[in-house]
Amino acid sequence: MLAAVCHGKKDLRIDTLAERPLAPGEVRVAVAYGGICGSDLHYYHRGAVGDFAVREPLVLGHEISGTVLEAGPGVRGLTAGMKAALDPSRPCLSCRHCRAGRSNLCTDMWFLGSAGRMPHSQGGFAQHLVLRSDQVIPVPQAADLQRLAMAEPLSVALHAVNQAGSLNGRRVLVTGSGPIGLLTARAARNAGALEVVCTDVEDAPLALAVRAMGATGTVNVRREPEALARFAADEAAFDAASEASGSPDALASIFRVLRRGGRVVQVGMLPPGTAPVPVNLLQSREFEFVGAFRANGEFRLAVDLILRGQVDVAPILSGTYPLSRAVDALELAGDRSKVIKLHLAINEAAA
Amino acid sequence: MLAAVCHGKKDLRIDTLAERPLAPGEVRVAVAYGGICGSDLHYYHRGAVGDFAVREPLVLGHEISGTVLEAGPGVRGLTAGMKAALDPSRPCLSCRHCRAGRSNLCTDMWFLGSAGRMPHSQGGFAQHLVLRSDQVIPVPQAADLQRLAMAEPLSVALHAVNQAGSLNGRRVLVTGSGPIGLLTARAARNAGALEVVCTDVEDAPLALAVRAMGATGTVNVRREPEALARFAADEAAFDAASEASGSPDALASIFRVLRRGGRVVQVGMLPPGTAPVPVNLLQSREFEFVGAFRANGEFRLAVDLILRGQVDVAPILSGTYPLSRAVDALELAGDRSKVIKLHLAINEAAA
Amino acid sequence: MLAAVCHGKKDLRIDTLAERPLAPGEVRVAVAYGGICGSDLHYYHRGAVGDFAVREPLVLGHEISGTVLEAGPGVRGLTAGMKAALDPSRPCLSCRHCRAGRSNLCTDMWFLGSAGRMPHSQGGFAQHLVLRSDQVIPVPQAADLQRLAMAEPLSVALHAVNQAGSLNGRRVLVTGSGPIGLLTARAARNAGALEVVCTDVEDAPLALAVRAMGATGTVNVRREPEALARFAADEAAFDAASEASGSPDALASIFRVLRRGGRVVQVGMLPPGTAPVPVNLLQSREFEFVGAFRANGEFRLAVDLILRGQVDVAPILSGTYPLSRAVDALELAGDRSKVIKLHLAINEAAA
Amino acid sequence: MLAAVCHGKKDLRIDTLAERPLAPGEVRVAVAYGGICGSDLHYYHRGAVGDFAVREPLVLGHEISGTVLEAGPGVRGLTAGMKAALDPSRPCLSCRHCRAGRSNLCTDMWFLGSAGRMPHSQGGFAQHLVLRSDQVIPVPQAADLQRLAMAEPLSVALHAVNQAGSLNGRRVLVTGSGPIGLLTARAARNAGALEVVCTDVEDAPLALAVRAMGATGTVNVRREPEALARFAADEAAFDAASEASGSPDALASIFRVLRRGGRVVQVGMLPPGTAPVPVNLLQSREFEFVGAFRANGEFRLAVDLILRGQVDVAPILSGTYPLSRAVDALELAGDRSKVIKLHLAINEAAA
Repeated sequence: MLAAVCHGKKDLRIDTLAERPLAPGEVRVAVAYGGICGSDLHYYHRGAVGDFAVREPLVLGHEISGTVLEAGPGVRGLTAGMKAALDPSRPCLSCRHCRAGRSNLCTDMWFLGSAGRMPHSQGGFAQHLVLRSDQVIPVPQAADLQRLAMAEPLSVALHAVNQAGSLNGRRVLVTGSGPIGLLTARAARNAGALEVVCTDVEDAPLALAVRAMGATGTVNVRREPEALARFAADEAAFDAASEASGSPDALASIFRVLRRGGRVVQVGMLPPGTAPVPVNLLQSREFEFVGAFRANGEFRLAVDLILRGQVDVAPILSGTYPLSRAVDALELAGDRSKVIKLHLAINEAAA
Repeated sequence: MLAAVCHGKKDLRIDTLAERPLAPGEVRVAVAYGGICGSDLHYYHRGAVGDFAVREPLVLGHEISGTVLEAGPGVRGLTAGMKAALDPSRPCLSCRHCRAGRSNLCTDMWFLGSAGRMPHSQGGFAQHLVLRSDQVIPVPQAADLQRLAMAEPLSVALHAVNQAGSLNGRRVLVTGSGPIGLLTARAARNAGALEVVCTDVEDAPLALAVRAMGATGTVNVRREPEALARFAADEAAFDAASEASGSPDALASIFRVLRRGGRVVQVGMLPPGTAPVPVNLLQSREFEFVGAFRANGEFRLAVDLILRGQVDVAPILSGTYPLSRAVDALELAGDRSKVIKLHLAINEAAA
Repeated sequence: MLAAVCHGKKDLRIDTLAERPLAPGEVRVAVAYGGICGSDLHYYHRGAVGDFAVREPLVLGHEISGTVLEAGPGVRGLTAGMKAALDPSRPCLSCRHCRAGRSNLCTDMWFLGSAGRMPHSQGGFAQHLVLRSDQVIPVPQAADLQRLAMAEPLSVALHAVNQAGSLNGRRVLVTGSGPIGLLTARAARNAGALEVVCTDVEDAPLALAVRAMGATGTVNVRREPEALARFAADEAAFDAASEASGSPDALASIFRVLRRGGRVVQVGMLPPGTAPVPVNLLQSREFEFVGAFRANGEFRLAVDLILRGQVDVAPILSGTYPLSRAVDALELAGDRSKVIKLHLAINEAAA
Repeated sequence: MLAAVCHGKKDLRIDTLAERPLAPGEVRVAVAYGGICGSDLHYYHRGAVGDFAVREPLVLGHEISGTVLEAGPGVRGLTAGMKAALDPSRPCLSCRHCRAGRSNLCTDMWFLGSAGRMPHSQGGFAQHLVLRSDQVIPVPQAADLQRLAMAEPLSVALHAVNQAGSLNGRRVLVTGSGPIGLLTARAARNAGALEVVCTDVEDAPLALAVRAMGATGTVNVRREPEALARFAADEAAFDAASEASGSPDALASIFRVLRRGGRVVQVGMLPPGTAPVPVNLLQSREFEFVGAFRANGEFRLAVDLILRGQVDVAPILSGTYPLSRAVDALELAGDRSKVIKLHLAINEAAA
């Protein structure tokens, strides 16, 4: 069984890995498609994501879909051949955060393709994968597995929207128009946002934002660094914002155009350490600045929205590479002028 | 009629001011006591609070109580001689923020003793004062007007607690044990907090925190800079925090001991500009960082709590000076090793 | 100036009324269109709405639009000839409910066309009308005043949706497919509801619900009284419901198909007195049962949604009658097999 | 091993039951004290609670404390001899409600002493009991196990208070002054309620409410049926209410004295079927009527509050009987003029 394994900075290999038997409650799946995420890029280019360094070989990947190969003892409702959306989160279900309904903050999480714990939590760019049965959501046989491999990033966007509170009738700013930013724009419109303005430093994703992801306006902050300011007059200011770029400058720009009492959701990952925040303004204008980390129950909704076509994720897909060309794909995926989202075709037979 | 007027940095004078006739809905009061707040100190010592510089003579003061002298046309329920708590906020009631129930964010606020608008909003360290009738809350004749002059800072503390969400059974950290920090500790315990740990750089207010304001623990962060870290183990970490010191260091310390999903309320005023915030942690731990600005409807509750004795504010009072010695009081009020809250006796007859 | 005046049960007359001069802050408008609401029907057919009996001649109507005729002293931004959406709510802005951001619960409300206070609050089925300037929302000259006469019922639907909490990804049941039910269905889909099932006892509005108002399913509860039960299996049960029929039977049906912890919003008006509620189930399943009364700030959003075409209200309009035929319109408006919403053309010149 | 087993209506026997071996993650405890709850009374007097009839012998009891006898494989932190508070809830942790942080609504709950599922979930009036390790909360050896046997009813009261939203500064009505009502009064005051008025049909619990449970006022609704009405003037009306009597009349009385927008929490269990609710008022005043069922995470807080003495539960204890006299205790427990809460001493050695 082949997998894309990161052995350290700029050292990705297609290794052959052994299978292991299934424990009760587990399911073996054949992975069809795997999307390349920013964290995969960080592991590949820097050998680390934030503080999490690759200390042993790590299979990358957590945006996946596939088909069931085998169900372990005690598993009900999943049989070989079924197509499935695959949730990369396996929370413990029993820590204080899980019990409080916030399993994305689980202190004993196994999240696919993460060096956050030791031994590492191996990822989904592998032809065969063993999951806990609640990570495997069966879908109709007619479902498009490539779209379903975007259920995970869509779930992150939906979670960012849920962290923003009700957006019904709201004016929303989304800074950064990568996959998460674009899907957040779409999800915000779906949740009733009256206006969604997207920003980026490239024109291509901004054009896509308007054409396919529901944006009502855009600003290229590289070419027009002052353009956001035209929204700063009180009546036009934003009710809420989602920071999806991971850029401290983008974050700073939000606080200048947010109405009093407005809410900022940080979904983009900033580097470890601190970023400057106008705390004086935050206090006197009662801004709310909150984090959004992965997803918390939104995965099934993401699957539903994709299956029903209520969110069309296809426009953000820029290309598909075979697993054997994973290195090429990782090299290309960082070029934001050309690429929004790249997929690996992990396993032709599973697609 | 005498008043304590700030003419600029270190230039406070006891001036004689003219009276003006009452418009419909207005009430003239004789001010009994006035508490010196941090913003009064800033106007006196620096000639400005944040970005708001004194550009014309400004009567200071907004923590006041007194007695009714005269009720203007159309005012009901207020007659000469009545004792009253005096609310320094006069929001417009009709802007979008007022209509949304957040009048403390009013874009057309008249707040006593503020240079935030031009002409300035004159303050309450004046023997006679004209207020809108809804700013005058009558109290029983047996009420203690000196305690009631602390209704405003108590209302700010209550608002900070309300911004923290339900504190029932929560573990709360309060950084900074000045008047607002101490009252926030008390208000947090009143609202059901299981534990409240207070910090400061002086021992005297920390001793008071435990003795009279409900703190269950304290840390002198000057003498024991690492002591907060003992709370960082997950189970003991804080659910919520109120930053009441205005110190970026104190703010930074909070994020190290807050549980995932925890909430930080910034009630202390930081200098204009930015402060470093661990945005990476805020995102991955889904912290909530929100402001608390003045009070929003909590003034009447503060009055009720003082009248019923459910919050005893007296322990934070360090001394009382006559209006004529306002400069002495302002000079002393900044010495946190000796003083928590100083009062001016504005008008002997009114007390 | 002509107006449709209810003098009691079944006694509606087109009377000539006198004009009155404008006070400061007031605006005189020419009403273009007026929609007939259920409360207008109750006044006409029974001489009362709930406990509010017509005790003096009452101009009916509160779903209106028009053009500005004259602006009183101190009014800014409104000049003769401007088209405008007209908000029937004039809350006091200063009672405890207004200050808490819930002006729809104002204890001193003037709501157009209501016998809820004495003297009555005269309504909008009048050629000329005097409003407080904040009730007059100017719109572009190209705007369709007939659609804008539906801003008020749309605002009620938006408020019902807001009372339901976030509907993002939720399954929603709407009982009763009159104007409010249909607009609630549309507003719920706009706010992200995954599914909206509408019920009624007539087929025509149910067909419209699917064709134009976003419903994903319907049940004719007269023809298929047991059909709702097919949703009662746990996984398919509804997360939220809006009761828009005013029928105790419809209300009872909701509690049988709601998931544990689900929320029911009562927006339809039931007769005075009590209705049977399964309180035992409400307790053990932690249902939330809440009211929705008129609108609270949603009027401007309704205007925005109509102007942008994000909600097309036109499909619910069944016909338009001249003011002179108001009695005919009121007689017809109660026939739910033929009519959803009827309009009166109040003032040809204003349209 | 002896246990109090209900074989049907009025048929309670002290039976000898067999022990069973421990599975991984399980713990055997010796039960020290067991409190008699209303549901125990219903099983004994009627052979059923609501729709749940006793269909096989059922050990009663769920308000218990004890000591650890033996820890099964894989259990950490619990060793023989440790005193412990014992949580009667064993939710599945994986259903949609558990995952959403509402495990009290779990669709696969094992709750001690309940006939709600078949086979029945056996209860805690047994000398030895097997629990999942997360149900066993170790406490200091100096802790009072009799007080800790009241952690469960206190947790129900805390949950009712949490369902009411923030009570900081609120005026609260509690109808019914049995154990849950009295503990709810205490918990509401602890959570910052300004006033708590308790009602009952007996004087003894009302006297206790004021003396020991924080009530600020009481009404004997049998002797003074109209007395609640004196609270109906708008300014004095209640912000929130907890219905803890299970009486439809008490519920009806609440809606007459609740302010607009007020919230009612139904924590008392009504008979199956419906009760009359003024839905017309609920709609036009936007009341919120919600359920509170058992507890959801509040058990550990209840233990903490008892251990710290922040809630003294001892005053509600009316007497203690040996297990052998369980029938006498059950007969007496229903006499509300004499008894608030009765305990069984299950196991002398464990106390």
